[in-house]
Amino acid sequence: MFKVTFSFEDGSMVETFANAGDNLLEVARSANVAIDAPCSGNGACGKCRVQLKSGELESKKTLHISDEEYQAGWRLSCCSKISADVNVLVPDIASAYKSRMKVADLSSKEEIAIFENAKSDIQLAGIELKNSLEVVDVLMDVPSLDDTMPDNERLTRALRKYLNINRVRIPYVVLKKLPDVLRENNFAVKCVIRATSDDMYVYDIFGKDEDVVIGGLAIDIGTTTVSAVLINMENGEILAKSSAGNGQIRFGADVINRIVESQKPGGQKKLQDAVIKETINPMIHEMCKSAKFPKDHIYRMCVASNTTMNHLFAGINADPLRTEPYIPAFFKTNSLFASDVGVDINKDAHIIMAPNIGSYVGGDITAGTLVSQIWNRPEFSLFIDLGTNGELVFGNSDFMMSCACSAGPAFEGGDISCGMRATDGAIEACTIDKETMEPTYKIVGDPGTKPVGLCGSGIIDVISELYICGIINPKGKFIREGKRIKHDKYGMGSYILAFEEEAGSVKDVEITEVDIDNFIRAKGAIFSAIRTMLTSLDFDVSMIDDVYVAGGIGSGINMQNAVNIGMFPDIPIEKFHYIGNSSLTGAYLMLLSTPAEKKTYELAANMTYMELSTVPIYMDEFVGACFIPHTDTSMFPTVMEEIQNR
Amino acid sequence: MFKVTFSFEDGSMVETFANAGDNLLEVARSANVAIDAPCSGNGACGKCRVQLKSGELESKKTLHISDEEYQAGWRLSCCSKISADVNVLVPDIASAYKSRMKVADLSSKEEIAIFENAKSDIQLAGIELKNSLEVVDVLMDVPSLDDTMPDNERLTRALRKYLNINRVRIPYVVLKKLPDVLRENNFAVKCVIRATSDDMYVYDIFGKDEDVVIGGLAIDIGTTTVSAVLINMENGEILAKSSAGNGQIRFGADVINRIVESQKPGGQKKLQDAVIKETINPMIHEMCKSAKFPKDHIYRMCVASNTTMNHLFAGINADPLRTEPYIPAFFKTNSLFASDVGVDINKDAHIIMAPNIGSYVGGDITAGTLVSQIWNRPEFSLFIDLGTNGELVFGNSDFMMSCACSAGPAFEGGDISCGMRATDGAIEACTIDKETMEPTYKIVGDPGTKPVGLCGSGIIDVISELYICGIINPKGKFIREGKRIKHDKYGMGSYILAFEEEAGSVKDVEITEVDIDNFIRAKGAIFSAIRTMLTSLDFDVSMIDDVYVAGGIGSGINMQNAVNIGMFPDIPIEKFHYIGNSSLTGAYLMLLSTPAEKKTYELAANMTYMELSTVPIYMDEFVGACFIPHTDTSMFPTVMEEIQNR
Repeated sequence: MFKVTFSFEDGSMVETFANAGDNLLEVARSANVAIDAPCSGNGACGKCRVQLKSGELESKKTLHISDEEYQAGWRLSCCSKISADVNVLVPDIASAYKSRMKVADLSSKEEIAIFENAKSDIQLAGIELKNSLEVVDVLMDVPSLDDTMPDNERLTRALRKYLNINRVRIPYVVLKKLPDVLRENNFAVKCVIRATSDDMYVYDIFGKDEDVVIGGLAIDIGTTTVSAVLINMENGEILAKSSAGNGQIRFGADVINRIVESQKPGGQKKLQDAVIKETINPMIHEMCKSAKFPKDHIYRMCVASNTTMNHLFAGINADPLRTEPYIPAFFKTNSLFASDVGVDINKDAHIIMAPNIGSYVGGDITAGTLVSQIWNRPEFSLFIDLGTNGELVFGNSDFMMSCACSAGPAFEGGDISCGMRATDGAIEACTIDKETMEPTYKIVGDPGTKPVGLCGSGIIDVISELYICGIINPKGKFIREGKRIKHDKYGMGSYILAFEEEAGSVKDVEITEVDIDNFIRAKGAIFSAIRTMLTSLDFDVSMIDDVYVAGGIGSGINMQNAVNIGMFPDIPIEKFHYIGNSSLTGAYLMLLSTPAEKKTYELAANMTYMELSTVPIYMDEFVGACFIPHTDTSMFPTVMEEIQNR
Repeated sequence: MFKVTFSFEDGSMVETFANAGDNLLEVARSANVAIDAPCSGNGACGKCRVQLKSGELESKKTLHISDEEYQAGWRLSCCSKISADVNVLVPDIASAYKSRMKVADLSSKEEIAIFENAKSDIQLAGIELKNSLEVVDVLMDVPSLDDTMPDNERLTRALRKYLNINRVRIPYVVLKKLPDVLRENNFAVKCVIRATSDDMYVYDIFGKDEDVVIGGLAIDIGTTTVSAVLINMENGEILAKSSAGNGQIRFGADVINRIVESQKPGGQKKLQDAVIKETINPMIHEMCKSAKFPKDHIYRMCVASNTTMNHLFAGINADPLRTEPYIPAFFKTNSLFASDVGVDINKDAHIIMAPNIGSYVGGDITAGTLVSQIWNRPEFSLFIDLGTNGELVFGNSDFMMSCACSAGPAFEGGDISCGMRATDGAIEACTIDKETMEPTYKIVGDPGTKPVGLCGSGIIDVISELYICGIINPKGKFIREGKRIKHDKYGMGSYILAFEEEAGSVKDVEITEVDIDNFIRAKGAIFSAIRTMLTSLDFDVSMIDDVYVAGGIGSGINMQNAVNIGMFPDIPIEKFHYIGNSSLTGAYLMLLSTPAEKKTYELAANMTYMELSTVPIYMDEFVGACFIPHTDTSMFPTVMEEIQNR
């Protein structure tokens, strides 16, 4: 056994032990050290780099590590085996995905505004904000020798009188508390109930004088990022808000790699634990701490997530999702309770889920569609969710069509050498001076934060600026020289946004031709999906009235730049609306409002799914879209104009 | 810390450690060594005797231990403290209650006959033998790219087609198995379902070719003895049968002591564990082993027990049962599932319970009433359940009245110095020669088994014979002398059934005047309850058409002897019928037949309860009944005749 030490730039470290020959990436995973490995450890992506601080590793030399870097101790962890005691530095850029949890500061109105808006918008659409959970005061006669009704019947009759519902269900957990709570409070109590027209379920019982607020948890489980809000179920007030990296990231960046990992022995449980025990439960803990809210007073939870994520969350075999004919275990289910999956809220809390409509269009999209309200207008709208997968919904109050395309993790900073989530140190916006080629950028975090990498919106800006300034050609190759342009020995060019000494990381913050190529394929997937879907419906981009853009790409997304690189169609810029994380907002609405929940099921049932891979023109469209902005520049007149004007 | 060793007569031993000053009975309890202590350890009953084999104890001398016995090392464990390493013998008579589990040999027709008879009797009463559990074969279309319905919807539709029930519920546990079971069996499966007219619940799913029998568990949880049968829910076949001592016995012999123990810190859990983990689960294990039946194929369970037992079983505070106004947490409840209480069967199995009708008339009686069928005849019948409490039901198809009296554990051999359950070594029947005063007896167990003590039916016989032979007077005092009659230094007489050298125990098997007095109070409680209830209803014993006697007293009960001692009224002996453990038989019928279950709820709802303690004549009746056979011998003409004839 050898001692393996993982050191971090903040000075912290994790120590573990491993056998000779163990794979370093696997060792990191089993020690819960998050090293970004989008390719799931097959040496292809080159992102899992670590730097030897002491000791040795038996490493394969790969193209991803230059001679100088190898000299300096850089290794790919997936290509390294343990051969001695070793101490490696895990650079921030590689650990950028690690589960850094953030509890939002609710004193900032921005954090709450999106939910307040969603509430009023949905009400304007005629959907009531009411749910079936309620706290009711129940006063009973104190029993005597002349009135010897048993406790459960006494409570049942009192509740029946209150709500005129015949069927009252008192589960074991309440029955068990009943004798004591009734007697300690002289038969004056309050109950947390769920009441429908013909059925009442008693979740909990308290003394009359106890202060009980019914909590609800809305959660968006993204492939990369998990976001949640803790709410007051009576009025929808946001009590706490939090986000964190999805702990599953160490099992691969995309859903396919996750499913593959889940098929290994014990894998299903590992992936479920990674998202529930390591990600969601700590978030609940922190939110409840910040809101001073008891966890077991959370009586309902709504999950919005893609189909793979909700299968892995539920611990249900997701393998059929990735093999023909791509069948989920469920589109919707009523069967899930907190105790089934170990979410740390009231164990009888019902977990509802935004419905899936296929293996590749999941609850995140149906929830987002609810929020976008494209179903509520006669005009034609396009809803785009830019996640690890890109999903589109096009339609109006008469019809809706959806499709999905595999964009990869580029929009969230994956597959990009200096890519990262929109967390501290991420360059989220950028302009480049055409003459000097010097960049000016905006960095996420407190003033003075040094750049560490690029998040999705930053990448769009950089590529757009590089193209508009004539620094790269439509294929994404560098065509100008300067101090910020570098070429390695294989001729691959890159643009340096921040030199090592300016950066908050241990190497230059740069964007390479490989990165640009990866991003072009991601944006090309989106654009060609839009075109393919519209063409199939005999529509043209000019007929789109509104585009709703959602996703973790960040509120900083510059729509014009996204048009410039050919990601979105060249239509008037005021038609684009960024609606934030609509998956979370949708989960919030479904949680708070039973009519909104029903509406979402209805939307899902009426939404058509188009499998792009079966549409012949899709590949042609994709090939054409893999240029900046497109092979057919006539589709992008304003971009051409901008190049002239700059 | 001192080492404490408990040795048993079979050579086995249990070792534990204790601190100086620890009470020996408590030490035994925490080491799960069952020492009978009906008074729950306050030195009153004198039954918890152990014999020092080595080491020492700090013991109080009590009246229950003679000087000779003290010399020989006998001590009361409740009056002994640890002061050194010690090894004590726990005599069989004291450990007679220990959880000796017995799995019945089903090749004996007797064991099964009672259930077969109950089935045909209940059918003759017009109650169908059908329940809602069923195994159904489900064939589905194999999904394809043109038929991409998710798994749960596919199954739901197929089940709906089969049974024409709209609402199908697939719980998490089945959803989790779904993708694999469907694909491994090419979408041909069988499901275990529970179907009512408007609702179907899927318990489990298997491949089409698997052999699945739905199991059910009927159980009678007596204060002293627990009995159970494992059945095939399709046809009621008995697959296994078992009985064991209730592990709670070490917390006191009667329900009041158990409730008191349950109020100590952690007590509720201890008592629940004692009956479930230590008693019921091992019984299930053994039954399933003998029947080669998988535990998790037991999908339904029915419990019949007195009100205290079902509260302690469910882990629900029973304290309100013993204090005015004596309110149970439930008469009936639908809320209990196997996983709630940790019964080791399918975790989603529903546990139904025979309904209570008050704190002192519980599900054992309502289940027994179902079996007795007194509700099905115009003639007046009396149903008597002789347990630790005695309960009576009197009535016919028009009305039923119930009452309970505290008989104490005497009928099951408790409160009697040589009393024991009807297990190996128990004298279960006895005659005495009037001239020689020599006894002839029948012993439970294989031929050649030596007598260890007396069970209920044996005690009745011995007292009846002693009285008829003129050896004791109506007050139960010895009035003849002989080699089998002994008097201790305080003048207390006893009759020796087996001298130490003939006995299977370490002392004489005898019955003392104290024992007889205890038993007279027990039988007096029963007789006076019968008289009080009948008198209140303006009935006379001569108007009783049939008497159904149930309970653990054993099938060997000699009804004439029970009349002789004044336990039952002096009516023609052919009117008495011993119906065995009707609590278990009733639980069996409720489990197997939903109409029988409903009938029991109906019976319970229509049964009136008479609280004897509030009836003024009860005490007078009791005082009169505390003689053999009674102060008013004119009520027992045949007994008087028998004395003349012997």
